[in-house]
Amino acid sequence: MKDEFILHPPKGFIMKGQFAGRMANVQKSFIREILKVTQDPNVISFAGGLPNPDYFPVEPLRAAADKVLAQDGANALQYAPTLGYGPLRQFIAQRYAQMCHLDVNPDHILITNGSQQGLDLVAKILIDPGDEVILESPSYLGGIQAFSLYQPAFTTLTLQADGVDLDQLAAVAASPRAKLFYALPNFQNPSGITYSAAKRAAAAQILRDQNVFFIEDDPYRELRFLGEDLPTLTSTSRENSFLLGSFSKIVAPALRMGWIVTTPELLDKLVIVKQAADLHSNYITQRILHQYLLDNDLDAHISVIKAVYRRQRELMVAMLEECFPSDIQFTLPEGGMFLWVTLPESVSAMDLFNEAVARNVVFVPGAPFYVDGGGQNTLRLNFSNTDEAKIEVGMTRLAQALKEVMREA
Amino acid sequence: MKDEFILHPPKGFIMKGQFAGRMANVQKSFIREILKVTQDPNVISFAGGLPNPDYFPVEPLRAAADKVLAQDGANALQYAPTLGYGPLRQFIAQRYAQMCHLDVNPDHILITNGSQQGLDLVAKILIDPGDEVILESPSYLGGIQAFSLYQPAFTTLTLQADGVDLDQLAAVAASPRAKLFYALPNFQNPSGITYSAAKRAAAAQILRDQNVFFIEDDPYRELRFLGEDLPTLTSTSRENSFLLGSFSKIVAPALRMGWIVTTPELLDKLVIVKQAADLHSNYITQRILHQYLLDNDLDAHISVIKAVYRRQRELMVAMLEECFPSDIQFTLPEGGMFLWVTLPESVSAMDLFNEAVARNVVFVPGAPFYVDGGGQNTLRLNFSNTDEAKIEVGMTRLAQALKEVMREA
Repeated sequence: MKDEFILHPPKGFIMKGQFAGRMANVQKSFIREILKVTQDPNVISFAGGLPNPDYFPVEPLRAAADKVLAQDGANALQYAPTLGYGPLRQFIAQRYAQMCHLDVNPDHILITNGSQQGLDLVAKILIDPGDEVILESPSYLGGIQAFSLYQPAFTTLTLQADGVDLDQLAAVAASPRAKLFYALPNFQNPSGITYSAAKRAAAAQILRDQNVFFIEDDPYRELRFLGEDLPTLTSTSRENSFLLGSFSKIVAPALRMGWIVTTPELLDKLVIVKQAADLHSNYITQRILHQYLLDNDLDAHISVIKAVYRRQRELMVAMLEECFPSDIQFTLPEGGMFLWVTLPESVSAMDLFNEAVARNVVFVPGAPFYVDGGGQNTLRLNFSNTDEAKIEVGMTRLAQALKEVMREA
Repeated sequence: MKDEFILHPPKGFIMKGQFAGRMANVQKSFIREILKVTQDPNVISFAGGLPNPDYFPVEPLRAAADKVLAQDGANALQYAPTLGYGPLRQFIAQRYAQMCHLDVNPDHILITNGSQQGLDLVAKILIDPGDEVILESPSYLGGIQAFSLYQPAFTTLTLQADGVDLDQLAAVAASPRAKLFYALPNFQNPSGITYSAAKRAAAAQILRDQNVFFIEDDPYRELRFLGEDLPTLTSTSRENSFLLGSFSKIVAPALRMGWIVTTPELLDKLVIVKQAADLHSNYITQRILHQYLLDNDLDAHISVIKAVYRRQRELMVAMLEECFPSDIQFTLPEGGMFLWVTLPESVSAMDLFNEAVARNVVFVPGAPFYVDGGGQNTLRLNFSNTDEAKIEVGMTRLAQALKEVMREA
């Protein structure tokens, strides 16, 4: 009765209809493919969007896990409500009040598997094939991937130093099929750009006037190490907003703990698709995370992370200024985890990538962040998942690689 | 800058196109709505599909969590591969070899958030609107819900005491749009029915001959307390199979740990939609679960659960035989967590539900498990998430409720 695993189906074995139409144009994440390469300890990686594991609160989480399992283990291991653990939602609501004076009802929060699941669930309740989804250009690859599976038509907006071009937004939001605008207003992934307060309010007002939904994807908000906190777009318009947050960057990504804040009407629909997707998010982790948040000072923890990321970002900028050709441009993010570099028009970031890999340093070429072509001369550098010594060595290697590519070009 | 949360949008505020078409006919799970009622400690519930929390391995999981966080905390808290933790996939593969002589390559396993996510991911890669999905009748509500969001046409097969009607299966599988057959061959949820070995092989052969994919949803396999283990449908046909499993029933549901076994070609597509859905399943939980499995005897643990469930199932059957009218019918499951009761044609299970709630006992009426109507006189009884004292009291109340409803009818 032992079966042989058949690696390839017998010739001529074709399933009826094969895969669904939505699978036609979606590929595996290039970034996650790169991550596989970076397992080599000799490779210095500025590629992944990973936090610095040296600052994960390992011991406090260990104590929290122990406490929850000792005190309420059986309940914490059972099936649980779809919305998520009430006291955790309460904590998130209170934090919005403290952080940016946003009044959030805990019952209007859905706990998700990281904010990535938020993108999928929102897309699932909203997008019919052909609906228009408005993206920043460049935009977050995971968002593009999640939305693409619902077969929208993408429209893109130029990302300026202080946010999207508002005239462009007003024009595309007026389209009768405009359904959803996707924005990362703080320290955007990949560009590092932050919207000004004025642009936040103006963009939200345009979307409200045009009855277009928006996702405010805000996983980096608490990683601001320069400048001042700015209000959410959601504070200008609540009815059409999905505000997404995450503990991945401020506690730890392996927990897969994020959330969506929205209206009761929209939440009702999200609950239906969340039930169908996985019933509810990992409940023991919600309990452990909440215990950790109760017993520790999250602000103090985040301060440590921010100080580290600020130093690493400053060193990376200094290296770009000192060791790189003067005709490159780069953003100066006030927080988050990424710098965005624009090479001279004639230089291909993919050529640079190949030259860099040969020198044991990697980054993410910018092109995959553009849905409509372009960005061939751009690249994303991550400054969080590294240290100062690696930044010095890695950026020196990268500068050499760039000089080599520019010499050849 | 403090916002008021607006509970209802201003009148006339209508979003363009509103929700996606797929949301039109999908409701919240009736079962999960019932679960909210059962928080009252006076209510005896045979409703939920919950394991018995008295037998969760709380202390061993506590020790495993402590060990993982003490020994490898930083790695266990970082982003991780989409497929899941390699040694956990290895464990699952080895268990199939021991359990049912099925040769599984660990690299052909995807870790999911419970088997519920497996249903969603498979549906997402396969189903175009109008594709035919073949269901057992009755079928699992969570499956119906997951598939419905991809707008298939459902076809149903009569479930006999030893599995689906094979003539019906052969007829519907021959349809040019037949895409997917969904089966729970062991102790089906909701009916408790198990396929015979002959029907497994025959059904798989029909699906193979007709090039129809199938999901073999098998979360209860290890909860067999009577009779002998039977081979998977997958062992007869690999190329078109998605074999789903779960740790929810044998370790704990709050972990949200399940898996899909399939071919490399199908797995490639599943990885794309898994990345888009949530990047990867909770990694710290994968690590803790694997540590628990390494350090403990899972078979011994499952033996304890099975002995309890067998006693509880036998008591529930004895109560049905002794206290209930002789013109009801019920299944005699060899494992799992559910009994299925068929009342006389004229008696409504919904009327019985209302009468039962008034007497502080609940169950799940059968109608929601049928996609094409019918089953008005059926109901599902859970015998796992209870104890013998509650079964005696609850089944006595239920018998009284039934007598009352039948007297009125």
